[in-house]
Amino acid sequence: MKANNRSGAIRKRLPLGQVYRLLEPGPVVLLTTAHKGRANVMAMSWHTMLEFEPPLVGCVVSDRNFSYAALKSTKECVINIPTVKLAESVVKCGNTSGRSRDKFTAFGLTAVPASRVAAPLIAECYANLECQVIDTHFVNRYCFFVLEVCLAWIDRTVRAPRTIHHRGRGEFMVAGRTIRLPSSMK
Amino acid sequence: MKANNRSGAIRKRLPLGQVYRLLEPGPVVLLTTAHKGRANVMAMSWHTMLEFEPPLVGCVVSDRNFSYAALKSTKECVINIPTVKLAESVVKCGNTSGRSRDKFTAFGLTAVPASRVAAPLIAECYANLECQVIDTHFVNRYCFFVLEVCLAWIDRTVRAPRTIHHRGRGEFMVAGRTIRLPSSMK
Repeated sequence: MKANNRSGAIRKRLPLGQVYRLLEPGPVVLLTTAHKGRANVMAMSWHTMLEFEPPLVGCVVSDRNFSYAALKSTKECVINIPTVKLAESVVKCGNTSGRSRDKFTAFGLTAVPASRVAAPLIAECYANLECQVIDTHFVNRYCFFVLEVCLAWIDRTVRAPRTIHHRGRGEFMVAGRTIRLPSSMK
Repeated sequence: MKANNRSGAIRKRLPLGQVYRLLEPGPVVLLTTAHKGRANVMAMSWHTMLEFEPPLVGCVVSDRNFSYAALKSTKECVINIPTVKLAESVVKCGNTSGRSRDKFTAFGLTAVPASRVAAPLIAECYANLECQVIDTHFVNRYCFFVLEVCLAWIDRTVRAPRTIHHRGRGEFMVAGRTIRLPSSMK
């Protein structure tokens, strides 16, 4: 267990087999990297689960993004999942390049050291997935990285998280009500 | 333009550059295939955009799914996007294999001929994306298919569609309110 006093979040380890339940609904996430002593953060919506356990995630990080070189070179990142409370910061992250700005300071995001990777967790996000790049075969063709989630953190006080989902051009759908149906799907 | 009287939907062509706006929020979709004279449909949540235009979509179709052989062999499919009205049918599609059952008849889904592919559109879905498999390099390793959307249909009378988003174990988040923020993100 790990507590972060500044944000008030109580972070607990999430069993790796549960990670798909966070990413499968398609939230916008904040991807953090650290390269040459400097952390960066970008907004990302193009990701998918590839395997349940160990959890594998495929994601597109464009070679126009400043994070691309960091991810390709360090092979490490953290996927941080924000809720609608952070929507303004998320959009500002998407509008700004880390080339010219420290986005953590500029947009009120708190970098917290991770356990397995050099990239930081974002304290204000309710879930954080420490990841290692395990396959770069599709990077040249599609800027598509295959990540393995090696450690997952969650603030369990956040139930039915109001994640945000990008519909393009600054329009976001906010997670609404929850329904349950008798499913044998995992 | 194409009208379907049975479902009452008015289907219009959607410019291909807009397709990402439908899939990026992460909805559960219904993937249709046709193989050896027989159509099939499966529920799918593991997909991501890979490119804006022409729209490329990456998706996982497990080799345990009956649709896997059809997709691998015919290299064609349709991604159909349902809303919460179809939630029960979607879950039933996820719970049942097409090996033993005609899921269209069983779950009240209407197959409509597509224009470019043999797989059918589902009339009750508000959007339908006719796709061709263009890259199978990641199929053996991750059951990950790269699709190009060659023709897209939408019922424009459906605004702010109440898509469903799988959180695992039969729990779904229903698309909630829409917020707009000044974004330079595409």
